[in-house]
Amino acid sequence: MNFFSSDFKLGILGGGQLGKMLLSETRKFDIQTYVLDPSDEAPCTIACNKFYQGDLTDFKTVYEFGKKVDVLTFEIEMVNVEALEQLEAEGVKVFPSPKTLKQIQNKGFQKDFYSRHNIPTAPYKRFISIPELIATIEAGGVTYPFVWKSAEFGYDGNGVKVVRTISDLEGLPEAECIAEEMIPFKNELAVIVARSVSGQIFTYPVVEMEFHPEANQVEYVICPARISDEVAQKARAIALEVSKKFDHVGLLAVEMFQTKDDEILVNEVAPRPHNSGHYSIEASYTSQFENHIRAILDLPLGNTDSKVAGIMVNLVGAEGFSGAVKYENIEKILDIPGVTPHIYGKKQTRPFRKMGHVTIVNENMDEARKIAETVKNTIKVISL
Amino acid sequence: MNFFSSDFKLGILGGGQLGKMLLSETRKFDIQTYVLDPSDEAPCTIACNKFYQGDLTDFKTVYEFGKKVDVLTFEIEMVNVEALEQLEAEGVKVFPSPKTLKQIQNKGFQKDFYSRHNIPTAPYKRFISIPELIATIEAGGVTYPFVWKSAEFGYDGNGVKVVRTISDLEGLPEAECIAEEMIPFKNELAVIVARSVSGQIFTYPVVEMEFHPEANQVEYVICPARISDEVAQKARAIALEVSKKFDHVGLLAVEMFQTKDDEILVNEVAPRPHNSGHYSIEASYTSQFENHIRAILDLPLGNTDSKVAGIMVNLVGAEGFSGAVKYENIEKILDIPGVTPHIYGKKQTRPFRKMGHVTIVNENMDEARKIAETVKNTIKVISL
Repeated sequence: MNFFSSDFKLGILGGGQLGKMLLSETRKFDIQTYVLDPSDEAPCTIACNKFYQGDLTDFKTVYEFGKKVDVLTFEIEMVNVEALEQLEAEGVKVFPSPKTLKQIQNKGFQKDFYSRHNIPTAPYKRFISIPELIATIEAGGVTYPFVWKSAEFGYDGNGVKVVRTISDLEGLPEAECIAEEMIPFKNELAVIVARSVSGQIFTYPVVEMEFHPEANQVEYVICPARISDEVAQKARAIALEVSKKFDHVGLLAVEMFQTKDDEILVNEVAPRPHNSGHYSIEASYTSQFENHIRAILDLPLGNTDSKVAGIMVNLVGAEGFSGAVKYENIEKILDIPGVTPHIYGKKQTRPFRKMGHVTIVNENMDEARKIAETVKNTIKVISL
Repeated sequence: MNFFSSDFKLGILGGGQLGKMLLSETRKFDIQTYVLDPSDEAPCTIACNKFYQGDLTDFKTVYEFGKKVDVLTFEIEMVNVEALEQLEAEGVKVFPSPKTLKQIQNKGFQKDFYSRHNIPTAPYKRFISIPELIATIEAGGVTYPFVWKSAEFGYDGNGVKVVRTISDLEGLPEAECIAEEMIPFKNELAVIVARSVSGQIFTYPVVEMEFHPEANQVEYVICPARISDEVAQKARAIALEVSKKFDHVGLLAVEMFQTKDDEILVNEVAPRPHNSGHYSIEASYTSQFENHIRAILDLPLGNTDSKVAGIMVNLVGAEGFSGAVKYENIEKILDIPGVTPHIYGKKQTRPFRKMGHVTIVNENMDEARKIAETVKNTIKVISL
């Protein structure tokens, strides 16, 4: 198939920052793109060939959009899977496949999948509701502390809570959930896997994540992770296995815990470009976004090695500010060598909203880490 | 001034591949852009915020476009300078300035500028017409061989010809021209200079250019040039001097000859992002396009050092093919590590038309050079 400067059309469900960064690659290759998003202010309204406004969870909207394109992908998991199944049945190529997406969308299914395939993961129990969970706690089947996770629609720390007493369960949504054993861990790691339609499969180096203690959002993503080669190899091997077992096509971000005993446990996966791979735009030979495009179009995958050390700092809205956004001190960070801000294009800020990210690259990791801290302490996302 | 996710508007005259690569940076920073180009199929029709179709050489069209924006730049020199002067007089910031552009647009003025400022350049004479040139040859004032250059509107080898006998002058345009002494040289080099509104000034490493013997278009751009540090330092110092003397703001690509005696002579300059800097997207800490944006908005300039060796191969239309474009064997080059094609988005190919470029990056220059040759011998721009 001829994708370049041709009539071929790639559809993307979701028009947020991940879609925007994908468009940067489709533009480079001059691949035609159609994007569907509910907001007419979505970051993807420009740079795609056609933008459609509509509900990603509505069968008819997704189905009709999908019928216009040759290959369909998504940058957000919360899409109508039944429409994807129907489109696939009618010959539209959908990657990642709706079958894979279904396994991943529900964290209960996801955990069962790991158990079934002997992929190491924290022990867990599934519950259809909070009362069922409470009953099990009372019967001694779940012990404090544990991690409550909503089975569906959790992201960026939403839908996850550490539960230490019964009162911690108050106010949680009355939905399907899991209770996971709390594992003491040294590091949160992630490995992005790219797997093409024909099964070519590459892993990116292991990254290490540091979370903001309050917002539960990633604060630094550090590539390569400062871990032993042995642990890194184990993490990459497990991520590879997870991608293969899911028969996944495209990018799969595999988030993992490194336990105190250097065991690797899979936490969860995201079947798309991921925050933990943003560093790759500046640091890697091939960015995660380019490799997603290559994978779903069954083109050869690009080199996932890094040219230099990379650290990513999320730019989230500062507490106490809501309204038209201003990036305070952005000039100051632009003055530091190897610092690249990415502004997603959301016009309104609010506390902890992901507004952009900054990549710091350097030949030397220690230097990069120092600069990352300076960046974090300098730039502030406020309102005008 | 607040440029990011704000009402600020950057105008770009010209909507070709250089504009397209600039838009990649404005998108990253979420800076609003308006683009003017005569073709409604220009590569920039998407990814800018507003596209206007119109004649870049028409006073009224350029003036009215310029009135809509806060800062105006261009990606092509052939624009109406009088309109730029009028806009500047009325408070629109125009970078590079119309004054600088005027000095550069006419190669006769450009050469006189070098002489006036003691910038080394090949000896030359200016002529208002071909008959005047012929009369001077007959009078012994110009001797064969020499290089004829059209004073205006030459690019990519058009408007330049080596003249060895009187018959070589046949068919040349009846326009102002210069006759330049033919200098035996070892290398054609280029240095890109970025200079901001406040005068911060950085040079990129020296690149080495290899030309296609027939088409007179650059075939490989190699960064860093394989020359001695001494020559490289001299070339960068001269380029710096040229930019300062022009009081240039934005990017200035300074093309130079390295003579057999390791002298550096300035050939010509381009006041914009340049083909010789495309390698910077993948190889440099800050691409030439990002630094152009930083310079004209008076933001701090980014690091111009390279992360890895970079080589750029132009993708030009193959001889014997005209029509809807096809990039033959593009999959094969995508399979080589460190190879990134850029497809400009022109739908029609014709012999020697610039359709895209390929960047090869590698830790090792010799390896990069080998891969570049493989790339050049593999991919072919043909028609369907």
